[in-house]
Amino acid sequence: MLDITKYIKMELSGQEFCGENFHTNPDIDKLSTEEKKEIISKIKPHLTPEAIVLAQVDPIVGDIEYNFNKAKKYIEWANELKVGAIAFPELFLFGYPVFDIIDRYPKLVEKNIEYLEKLAKCTGKTKVLIGFCEFNRFYIGKRYFNSVAVLSNKKIETIIRKTLLPVYSEFNDARYFQSAEFDSKERIIEIGKMRAGIVICEENWADKDFFDHPVYSFDPVDKIIKEQNPDIIINCSSSPTRAKKEQLLHNMLSFVSKKYETPIAYVNQTGAVDNITFQGASRLYSAKGEIMARAKSFEEQFFIVQPNPKPSCSKDINCIYTLPQGLEKTLNSQKAFSLDYEPDLERTYLTITSSIRDYFHKNGFKRAVLGVSGGLDSSVSCVLLADALKSENVFAVSMPSSITSEQSKSDAQELCANLGVNFTEIPIFDMFKAARSTFDGVFEKVETRWQDRFKASLTNDNIQARSRAMILWGISNEFPNTMPIATSDKSELYMGYATINGDMSGGFAPIADVTKTKLFALARWLNKNRLQRNAIPEAVLIKPPGAELAIDPKTGKPLLAEDALMPYEFLDEVIWRLENLHQSKEEMLCETFLYEEKNNISKATKIAWLDKFFRRMQTALFKWSIMPPAPIVDARSINKTEYNQPITSKLKFY
Amino acid sequence: MLDITKYIKMELSGQEFCGENFHTNPDIDKLSTEEKKEIISKIKPHLTPEAIVLAQVDPIVGDIEYNFNKAKKYIEWANELKVGAIAFPELFLFGYPVFDIIDRYPKLVEKNIEYLEKLAKCTGKTKVLIGFCEFNRFYIGKRYFNSVAVLSNKKIETIIRKTLLPVYSEFNDARYFQSAEFDSKERIIEIGKMRAGIVICEENWADKDFFDHPVYSFDPVDKIIKEQNPDIIINCSSSPTRAKKEQLLHNMLSFVSKKYETPIAYVNQTGAVDNITFQGASRLYSAKGEIMARAKSFEEQFFIVQPNPKPSCSKDINCIYTLPQGLEKTLNSQKAFSLDYEPDLERTYLTITSSIRDYFHKNGFKRAVLGVSGGLDSSVSCVLLADALKSENVFAVSMPSSITSEQSKSDAQELCANLGVNFTEIPIFDMFKAARSTFDGVFEKVETRWQDRFKASLTNDNIQARSRAMILWGISNEFPNTMPIATSDKSELYMGYATINGDMSGGFAPIADVTKTKLFALARWLNKNRLQRNAIPEAVLIKPPGAELAIDPKTGKPLLAEDALMPYEFLDEVIWRLENLHQSKEEMLCETFLYEEKNNISKATKIAWLDKFFRRMQTALFKWSIMPPAPIVDARSINKTEYNQPITSKLKFY
Repeated sequence: MLDITKYIKMELSGQEFCGENFHTNPDIDKLSTEEKKEIISKIKPHLTPEAIVLAQVDPIVGDIEYNFNKAKKYIEWANELKVGAIAFPELFLFGYPVFDIIDRYPKLVEKNIEYLEKLAKCTGKTKVLIGFCEFNRFYIGKRYFNSVAVLSNKKIETIIRKTLLPVYSEFNDARYFQSAEFDSKERIIEIGKMRAGIVICEENWADKDFFDHPVYSFDPVDKIIKEQNPDIIINCSSSPTRAKKEQLLHNMLSFVSKKYETPIAYVNQTGAVDNITFQGASRLYSAKGEIMARAKSFEEQFFIVQPNPKPSCSKDINCIYTLPQGLEKTLNSQKAFSLDYEPDLERTYLTITSSIRDYFHKNGFKRAVLGVSGGLDSSVSCVLLADALKSENVFAVSMPSSITSEQSKSDAQELCANLGVNFTEIPIFDMFKAARSTFDGVFEKVETRWQDRFKASLTNDNIQARSRAMILWGISNEFPNTMPIATSDKSELYMGYATINGDMSGGFAPIADVTKTKLFALARWLNKNRLQRNAIPEAVLIKPPGAELAIDPKTGKPLLAEDALMPYEFLDEVIWRLENLHQSKEEMLCETFLYEEKNNISKATKIAWLDKFFRRMQTALFKWSIMPPAPIVDARSINKTEYNQPITSKLKFY
Repeated sequence: MLDITKYIKMELSGQEFCGENFHTNPDIDKLSTEEKKEIISKIKPHLTPEAIVLAQVDPIVGDIEYNFNKAKKYIEWANELKVGAIAFPELFLFGYPVFDIIDRYPKLVEKNIEYLEKLAKCTGKTKVLIGFCEFNRFYIGKRYFNSVAVLSNKKIETIIRKTLLPVYSEFNDARYFQSAEFDSKERIIEIGKMRAGIVICEENWADKDFFDHPVYSFDPVDKIIKEQNPDIIINCSSSPTRAKKEQLLHNMLSFVSKKYETPIAYVNQTGAVDNITFQGASRLYSAKGEIMARAKSFEEQFFIVQPNPKPSCSKDINCIYTLPQGLEKTLNSQKAFSLDYEPDLERTYLTITSSIRDYFHKNGFKRAVLGVSGGLDSSVSCVLLADALKSENVFAVSMPSSITSEQSKSDAQELCANLGVNFTEIPIFDMFKAARSTFDGVFEKVETRWQDRFKASLTNDNIQARSRAMILWGISNEFPNTMPIATSDKSELYMGYATINGDMSGGFAPIADVTKTKLFALARWLNKNRLQRNAIPEAVLIKPPGAELAIDPKTGKPLLAEDALMPYEFLDEVIWRLENLHQSKEEMLCETFLYEEKNNISKATKIAWLDKFFRRMQTALFKWSIMPPAPIVDARSINKTEYNQPITSKLKFY
């Protein structure tokens, strides 16, 4: 496992933003002949035969034809510009991540081979590096290779097969692919006068000087450079985004290029698949470890880089697009828990919105329907949906019960008015009443056999949450291409403070990997940074969270979440320590929490909170297992794509 | 991937059943001193110093103390009997499967080391082989080893580390463990005068003569035997059950022992964890490949075997317990689809019931509540629950709507009376009415913005299914340790013919990996083979399946499932071909289905059914992702523990 808490101190350099470059538009086929001519005349003089296009594209998994057509368009345009090479992301032709599809649908793999051959026919002098899934024709081993084909002059010139296969977190390469025998000679291709060494994604992540605890004993980059002395390393990647990854990636690539005095060109895909989102941000490092070019984040791009640009080099080549705001500042952060989420908020916003957009559009959905309670979770979810799908495609439903306050109702309404999303209010009194009376009939009968009925239960709370989900699923049954949204957040999922078939039910869960304290920060950030300021009413931001499902007998007011659980600042630090430092309960007891620095709490209280956390988490495991897809946002998560735990597991947290 | 459709023709030998042997009772601590003495005097004379106990035990993942105590009890008894060795399953001390627990809770791994040292202190002359999770103290690689410690005379004698790490299906070893360097010398331990070579689970599955397409280029067994010439191979396994696995395991172990003229002793765990069930059935093969002993299936057992028994050897040693009925007959089956499920029904029954039992008990649940409709799915589920948990712990609720027939209601009631499970009937009219009128209010408002409301929808069907699930979850909120049950079957899950938050919602889904035609066979088998005959009313077995959620406008009667989908016989063969032969739509079109042999269908109909299958399956992927835990029963499944597919995947089924 990569130790992503370790960062080398190295500044991200070159924060120059070069604006919108016409030629980097991926919709090349929409250009007129006139426009194409203009671009060619503008750029061509600056190109060397060593220019490389980093094709930052968004595939659809298993839709070989779609991916083929996208690649073809890019390749044709690269040929017209007469660049030396164009590099696509890892496994682009099949679409990544493959998961178990390639096992069950070998026909699809045949198709990707067929289309690879078709694609070869479309090539000219420009060399094409394209990831695809290859059959393993050898007698022994897994059935496939994770390969990159090099195409040119209408032929498949050579094939490079991945040797280092990651199996951790969301990665599962060794499940499907045979690790290829490594021969550094086979990794070298010529681009103009330049000899380039090709590696595939993980193969760049094995430097023994960079990582404290390397996973692999073999380092392909080291081998290629020592044996072949190439002029550049080209890395074809499909590498998902998460908190802190940008810094790690930058530090690592910068370190390796500097160490070997060899430039590195890195191409990464964009878009999202279920829980996994790709940032793009393809790039080029110089032999000194400086960033020379960086593509946009979270967008497709046809991106030209030149390892050794002419002195006259146009600004259209080797652009440096800025990263999402703030990412540069966090090089040494997250060694301690902090409530300063600012540096990661724009990336968080872009991760979630592109994830929503791709999940909806690639699956044929257009509209979202969600419950708005006037609380933080549903308010932030509503903003993210409106931005990802456009306001007219969002229907927000306020579903008050007898406990819902007037303030909550008006906050929900105000939010929706601000955002321009569709809004309606429908009380759930009748559904509650009918359920309650039916339940009473059943419970009475059950009680004749099982006499230990609870004195107090969550039944009423849950009727409300489940009636609301029923309404949302009803709308999705009744209107085309409409998906209900689950609005649970990460802090509450850890505590199991979410209702099965209620607020945690939906087709997608946009904020399930965002803790409550970070959500507050994100809400304020949205209010400040979106074009339309202050969409979320201030009242939402200052009221203490509470589900408004039950009345606190002590106060006569709705029960507050922090009373039922513990202060969110404390809770979120427990989560952070568990996910990032893997601390046990005992270890946490010995550490001073940020919350403790500001508030006086007794040791007994701290023990009680920690006990409650681990006890409730154990019973929450089942809920994690039935969560709908949710974008991975944090450095670590409970998202089942990357974290797996048996429900049946007595974890005694020493 | 192991090719489990290939079987070598070899008869399972020795179907001798040796009855209940007192000494094989795992509750050793419940024996009186008198009883112990009697057993010792009865067995000891027959024991050689090479006798081995196969400790067929059921661990709890992460509950190190529980596993330790169980191991300690077995070891003490083995010492009293003065056997040569006792072998526990793979990773027993930590509990298997580990999944990601060992990454996030390193403290638990420390604990398993601590308890290993404690356990060593309890040992005497009898050698103890016990699986545990070991820290990798080397600089490079994954953080852990999957190891077996050899303990004796109060010490850890040596440690054996697994080299072959499976990553396919439900196996994920390489995700967590470092593959150990292999040294055949280190694999040898002495038991009496016998030199035993130790392998861990997968390391026995690499024979190049047995498998058509071996996964591994390296075969540890071959290496140990060629370099060390041991007298026996001992295999410590944790290997889950599934259809056809018993035959494969038997063929493989028999083949390998015969090939090398070396006996193999194989110990396997029992019990279940979430989706995975272990059969136990530990065993011994002779150097001729004959089965010499086989422990019980699906039960814990203290099981003594002797590779070279004395001529006088007691029947209490080297027992052969029969396998679940019929398994021996299926050596060459399943090369073609067949409706003859008979040979796998007892194993299916035992897999599901032990899976239910372990899931409930290990997670602190005692009671199940389910909806009974008088249909096949809920009827079979009800029987399985009653048998696994005892009738008094099952509450069956009949929840008729206006569509439910009198026959359905009385069938449900009759079933429950037969089983002696608790039963009540509560109509959902009121809930339906309240939901419908609330929905009408919402839909009207939504329609003002989204004008493309469906003319016909599944809304009414789903209100019924969701109201029912709400009642079941309500009961689980109101009564302690009560879990609602999802009754979806495999055929309908493939078609997405299951309602989210409705019939597919629950804490556990017992029959989610059983197809409809197999369920019919299982129902008839239950009626014939359970002590209490014909618990399922004949009417349930002869009526055509239908959800009774909507009226067919053509007939005026409830819509039948086969009309909405396609004949189950055809559907189940599509599933079988997809899972076992990985056939594409085109390939299936060219094959003759069993259904076609008996019924005349046009090519157009076949195309339409196949189209419908693949189209509906694509939209069902989301439902698979939010299914509750369900025991893996079939040779292949859509259970997310072993099969992973991105929802966002345009599979064009050529």
